[in-house]
Amino acid sequence: MSKSHDPWQDAMDHAVAVARKSGEMIREVVQNQDQSSLVQTKSSAVDLVTETDQKVERLIIQSVKSKFPSHRFIGEESVSSGEPCILTSDPTWIIDPIDGTTNFVHRYPFVGVCIGFAVNQQVEWGVVYSAIEDKMFTARRGRGAFCNGRPLQVSTQTDVHRSMVATEFGSDRDPQVVDKIFSSLHKVLSLPVHGVRGAGSAALNMCAVARGSVELYYETGVHVWDIAAASVIVTEAGGVLRDTTGGALDLMSRRIVAANNETIATRIIAELEVYSSERDDRAPDCEPE
Amino acid sequence: MSKSHDPWQDAMDHAVAVARKSGEMIREVVQNQDQSSLVQTKSSAVDLVTETDQKVERLIIQSVKSKFPSHRFIGEESVSSGEPCILTSDPTWIIDPIDGTTNFVHRYPFVGVCIGFAVNQQVEWGVVYSAIEDKMFTARRGRGAFCNGRPLQVSTQTDVHRSMVATEFGSDRDPQVVDKIFSSLHKVLSLPVHGVRGAGSAALNMCAVARGSVELYYETGVHVWDIAAASVIVTEAGGVLRDTTGGALDLMSRRIVAANNETIATRIIAELEVYSSERDDRAPDCEPE
Repeated sequence: MSKSHDPWQDAMDHAVAVARKSGEMIREVVQNQDQSSLVQTKSSAVDLVTETDQKVERLIIQSVKSKFPSHRFIGEESVSSGEPCILTSDPTWIIDPIDGTTNFVHRYPFVGVCIGFAVNQQVEWGVVYSAIEDKMFTARRGRGAFCNGRPLQVSTQTDVHRSMVATEFGSDRDPQVVDKIFSSLHKVLSLPVHGVRGAGSAALNMCAVARGSVELYYETGVHVWDIAAASVIVTEAGGVLRDTTGGALDLMSRRIVAANNETIATRIIAELEVYSSERDDRAPDCEPE
Repeated sequence: MSKSHDPWQDAMDHAVAVARKSGEMIREVVQNQDQSSLVQTKSSAVDLVTETDQKVERLIIQSVKSKFPSHRFIGEESVSSGEPCILTSDPTWIIDPIDGTTNFVHRYPFVGVCIGFAVNQQVEWGVVYSAIEDKMFTARRGRGAFCNGRPLQVSTQTDVHRSMVATEFGSDRDPQVVDKIFSSLHKVLSLPVHGVRGAGSAALNMCAVARGSVELYYETGVHVWDIAAASVIVTEAGGVLRDTTGGALDLMSRRIVAANNETIATRIIAELEVYSSERDDRAPDCEPE
């Protein structure tokens, strides 16, 4: 009964356990503390981080390091503190302790603990725990996607006019960026589509694609830790991943389209403004462009 | 132990029971049926109604009629079928069987059964049952607001830059209306605020104000059955209700602002485009304007 011949499954089982423990910490803070006292800001007045983000990331990394000492990490809070954000061929845990920090601060009930695992730069499995809803989304490459153990399947809809789309306004309030966000959104809404929603969490928007609640999610400005874990949940539920250019998804490019199928993806991508954020893997010692 | 000296409480208790039963019907359809086969459209290609909306409204009205034969009704589906939408001084049940029908069709988990009760044109109590989340929001005038029995309290935030705002794109895709929706939203987002969310249900956006997850919700195009029940939940949680003009809320005017306090309400209202939808209580035999 040894699992030693499947070390990636051992790692995934560990991720599920530590994501659940992280979620318990998050729920406790949501229920008992006044968030406003804990908030710090990062890149802008509306890009928030809290002590809980940092505490949860430390919990996850320390627990993984003790069990898998040779593995590497890319974590949202570690990168903010100056650690590199480079995906090598080594087994790498890609962690967002709280995807949806603004929701967390406001007790809006969509907060995801995201743990993805890549080897040879390919995501092998992903775990997204929606902590307040108590929903555990999991997928392993080639073995299907699940929520609390129930199989997930994307929507079969091919008519864009009957589709629901998810996106976000993000935390960049640069007027040129906001104009591009509004321009894309205006065109998508006017196709028309049934509606536009935004959970306030990239990972949970992607899980909504995986479970068939929305046909497509798109955003520019996401980070690798927001999308790595959920990417395999989408594909294992039958969905497709793209860049907003229409090309293949590049986890480091800050742009994503996750859709139920090619038909919907192609139709919506035709409406999207393509623009760039600074890549996640830009080496800090490079000259800025 | 007779309750006969408090007939409005008897009515409210009945509403809670029938809302819960309605929610069970809704959950069963969400779990077991293919929604797409059930969808019909109303005013536009994206204004949806399903058999379940109609079935749930019939359930509620029949159950209330047998217990309170003298009471009147305003129900979303009954009005769609030609019944008048006039609020008299008589005890009146104001019903939206499924607030968030587009969510229901897509299994997006925000669907509210709304039952409000007005006497002398004032809402005495409101019940909003978030059926998929299994959250029962209730409030009676002068006696507080609750979710599953726990008291609700609006956010104490007075700084608009630290606030979260909820709104919707609605189901009207008239280009002039969409332009006004985008214009208001662009100004609100750029204040800046922490973020903008939309649950896809007016009533559940208002309950989010009541529980302190968002500071303010605004929308033009809502109907009296979307907002009547939740209106008393907002005020009993300490919040305020306004027209998008800044004046007093008129339940029939199709415009609403629900906020945690006057400071936030006044600041956001200054950014909103004011425009009108046809009033809910326009008599069908009047000349159209």
